[in-house]
Amino acid sequence: MNRTHGVGADDRPVVLADEQARAWSPAQARARFRTGLTGPTAGVAAGRTQANLICVPADWAYETLLFCQRNPQACPVLDVTDAGSATTVLAEGADLRTDLPRYRVWQHGELVDEPTDVRAYWRDDLVSFLIGCSFTFEWALAAAGVPLRHVEQGRNVPMYVTNRRCRPAGRLRGPLVVSLRPVPPEHLAAAIRESSLFPAVHGGPVHCGDPSVLGIADLGRPDHGDPVDAAPDDIPVFWACGVTLQAAVTASRPPFALTHAPGQMFLTDARDEQYRVA
Amino acid sequence: MNRTHGVGADDRPVVLADEQARAWSPAQARARFRTGLTGPTAGVAAGRTQANLICVPADWAYETLLFCQRNPQACPVLDVTDAGSATTVLAEGADLRTDLPRYRVWQHGELVDEPTDVRAYWRDDLVSFLIGCSFTFEWALAAAGVPLRHVEQGRNVPMYVTNRRCRPAGRLRGPLVVSLRPVPPEHLAAAIRESSLFPAVHGGPVHCGDPSVLGIADLGRPDHGDPVDAAPDDIPVFWACGVTLQAAVTASRPPFALTHAPGQMFLTDARDEQYRVA
Repeated sequence: MNRTHGVGADDRPVVLADEQARAWSPAQARARFRTGLTGPTAGVAAGRTQANLICVPADWAYETLLFCQRNPQACPVLDVTDAGSATTVLAEGADLRTDLPRYRVWQHGELVDEPTDVRAYWRDDLVSFLIGCSFTFEWALAAAGVPLRHVEQGRNVPMYVTNRRCRPAGRLRGPLVVSLRPVPPEHLAAAIRESSLFPAVHGGPVHCGDPSVLGIADLGRPDHGDPVDAAPDDIPVFWACGVTLQAAVTASRPPFALTHAPGQMFLTDARDEQYRVA
Repeated sequence: MNRTHGVGADDRPVVLADEQARAWSPAQARARFRTGLTGPTAGVAAGRTQANLICVPADWAYETLLFCQRNPQACPVLDVTDAGSATTVLAEGADLRTDLPRYRVWQHGELVDEPTDVRAYWRDDLVSFLIGCSFTFEWALAAAGVPLRHVEQGRNVPMYVTNRRCRPAGRLRGPLVVSLRPVPPEHLAAAIRESSLFPAVHGGPVHCGDPSVLGIADLGRPDHGDPVDAAPDDIPVFWACGVTLQAAVTASRPPFALTHAPGQMFLTDARDEQYRVA
């Protein structure tokens, strides 16, 4: 997508721009984004849960929620707002229209804008869905010694549209999108074990190894985010990704939708530990 | 409820009626129920996932799904059918209108019938929800050495309406309902650990100890199911229960709904292990 739609493609990772972003509170992060800071959010506000955003007209809300229920590994629902509300129980004082680094605006499945504020596009019939993000378990991976190549390299996580079809829900259908983390073989067990303990934010990987099994021809050309450099022995590990909903928008062409820009997530007040089982 | 509505209250647990019920396949269990066998299903078709059922008119489907999403510990959604369909991806060849031991029929929040077959009540606008059931993790508890008093005593699991309010969704609101398992102190850690690994089927307990914290005055008088005899040192342990949706029907009075009878669940083909993380 970044290749097709250049808007926002040169956003620098927030962590590069400000090492202190790790120590921000979620409210501090949201305030920075509200006033114009942009960039991928991996590494921001350590230990706090990040979320994908999709806002659809109310007459698409049931199918969106059902699509999420039918594809829970890709689309784990953390919160759903009442129609027209831009607030969420997951973030006190937050405004979903302004507090993300960058948004995407979709009309009939076409990406028409990537603004940093969507108040001009807001409608009173919009229902907003906050969807779990794999950035949530990255802290657990790091604590278990698993290197995170995209964080080390100051890049957005790479994401790929796969050949796997989601289970449709009414008018909504589309392919599974995955995020990639190259993992050294000696850390593979920990990466799988730790992420599996977070089923509400994508859980364990959907595939490890040969990318062609997922229909991915070239890891160097992600559909979203940045390519990352893997060490020679690294195993490509793929997790289901909330951008799956954006692929469903592209495939299903609802008249209107708002989403976050891939990798530029909403910072909730929730603690990652809340989504860890056992 | 059994005290108020006597219908079906004398159903004997299936396991008592037929020790071989543990070894039935899910299809065999469904066939028995289809031809009239009734009774609580704890212990039936070992290792296969059991589910709560609620069917609502399509114009209540979004609020029902949203209520489940907002109260995921009580109402974990395993499958949602398309309107009018009595089949589910979770059970090949099953008919949701005939294959449960006993149903409940609700009109404007009132329980009006408890038949063993709901074909006469079926409507083409009904959307069916299959909701996780704590019977699913009982095998894991048993394997970890945790005694199951209701199974030992051949009774239905006791269930209680609590003083905790669910987060409402549109017109749907109501109290949390819990199931009780008395657990010996030396098995408490295992009971919590093992059940927590099944977040899709209620996960870990919502409370351990003093029932009055949940507004339960008398463990000997459950709102659904049977009282069980606890050993003197047993700690009462409460898990969120899918009957919460029936309490929401009572409180919210949708014009029509079908549900299972408490403890008399739908047997899916899914294996319990599929819902265990890590």
